[in-house]
Amino acid sequence: MELVNAHKCFGGTLQFCQHQSDALGCRMGFSIFLPEQATQTRAPLLWWLSGLTCTEENFAVKSGAYGEAARLGLAIIAPDTSPRGTHVADDAAYDLGQGAGFYVDATEPPWAPHFSMYSYITQELRALVAGSFPIDAARQAISGHSMGGHGALVLGLRNPSLYKSISAFAPIVTPSECPWGKKAFTAYLGEERSAWSSYDACKILRSGTSRTKCGKILVDQGASDQFLDDQLMPQRLEAAAREAGQALELRMQPGYDHSYFFISSFIGDHLEHHAACLR
Amino acid sequence: MELVNAHKCFGGTLQFCQHQSDALGCRMGFSIFLPEQATQTRAPLLWWLSGLTCTEENFAVKSGAYGEAARLGLAIIAPDTSPRGTHVADDAAYDLGQGAGFYVDATEPPWAPHFSMYSYITQELRALVAGSFPIDAARQAISGHSMGGHGALVLGLRNPSLYKSISAFAPIVTPSECPWGKKAFTAYLGEERSAWSSYDACKILRSGTSRTKCGKILVDQGASDQFLDDQLMPQRLEAAAREAGQALELRMQPGYDHSYFFISSFIGDHLEHHAACLR
Repeated sequence: MELVNAHKCFGGTLQFCQHQSDALGCRMGFSIFLPEQATQTRAPLLWWLSGLTCTEENFAVKSGAYGEAARLGLAIIAPDTSPRGTHVADDAAYDLGQGAGFYVDATEPPWAPHFSMYSYITQELRALVAGSFPIDAARQAISGHSMGGHGALVLGLRNPSLYKSISAFAPIVTPSECPWGKKAFTAYLGEERSAWSSYDACKILRSGTSRTKCGKILVDQGASDQFLDDQLMPQRLEAAAREAGQALELRMQPGYDHSYFFISSFIGDHLEHHAACLR
Repeated sequence: MELVNAHKCFGGTLQFCQHQSDALGCRMGFSIFLPEQATQTRAPLLWWLSGLTCTEENFAVKSGAYGEAARLGLAIIAPDTSPRGTHVADDAAYDLGQGAGFYVDATEPPWAPHFSMYSYITQELRALVAGSFPIDAARQAISGHSMGGHGALVLGLRNPSLYKSISAFAPIVTPSECPWGKKAFTAYLGEERSAWSSYDACKILRSGTSRTKCGKILVDQGASDQFLDDQLMPQRLEAAAREAGQALELRMQPGYDHSYFFISSFIGDHLEHHAACLR
């Protein structure tokens, strides 16, 4: 692992790192914020999964989260959103290929050789981070935005022993039923829709196979989000959670859009939500 | 004036606007944050002047300032850093021409026709903003970073009736005496150094011609800033302020660099400083 650069930030340190990923077959970058407390004791860790077109930089630069993270003693890791490189399959559209990994393990050509973001996040990067930084592997939580909100819900619901707490901003709650998800899942997982269910938060909830071990899932959704009705459909998550008996707080935020200005306005609430679960 | 886009943010509104500037002879952009309180009563306004290479976007995206601004009821405007356009003179270097206006009124060719950032900020844009937004023109303050910290000190010290409070992050305190400033001032103002003095914060202080009307100037400087010794030299500002009887709090921040991660860590203190002066 290579430290690309580091910045002191709110008394802690923000590091940009790169490493060679076996799961993805390419070099990958991530950012990690370590609060000052991590110089004394292992810090709880929040995973932040970013949305379409993002890299490991967007959250670090735009979220405004590190002040509250420093106060709470919370570390935050933001991985990249897909494999990268000239040897990695890609598509000219912003919503497929590089920058659009959708946190699945692809089974179809030409994506299967590199697009294994589910395994990368839950296994390879998790092990690398636990072995390289002063974080408490027993206290991890997960959140994300849009495609990354989908990732947070899916990874969190399927791995309650890894992630003690889940939240999301404007998540794609049922990719099997929206244009972004149908396009990506058809490409990465094939036409057979039964293969899609384990990457669809609403279907995971309804299957009853998983339940978070810690309290309610917190979801913030801008009521003026341009993708609300066609792509995001948070009321479907609300219905699925109700059926499954999963506690969920869905907050519709009037006037807010899909941008990081929305995320920055409420990220403090999410960090407090996770810190309380991880305490 | 054209509203390019708007985002709800911390209960207020962040607007990106464009207008045709007479002072600069080109189209210019700026961002302005209006706190929720501005829907009821005119808000005090902080001017943020950005550094080399920046546009009106950098502060808006990277500073993490709007949460604290919302709590304090403070509006913040971030103008672009120079005239722009294919008809505007430019230089291949990052520290001259477009993106590097240095907040002076240029007198030399080829810069003089467009590079009048001093007049643009203190007159044209000030009048436009006062006439277009619910801000209290009697309660304005100024801050900035690096080249923009220089701008904040110079504009603030020369116009105490316009700006009631001054602060800066890692400012160029005496451009006449550092490589960035010498290069830019030679190009924009000519070889005759007497023309430089009115754009040099240390020389303005020593001339005794100006004094802020409100308390002390707050300056934060990262002690690990790569430009500290060659370009910034904050101890020269400290000496000039002492000679001039100008109150100054210079805070050397151990481990911090020149980036927005440094700014974001301390912008809250600066907003509180200005809000207290403008109360």
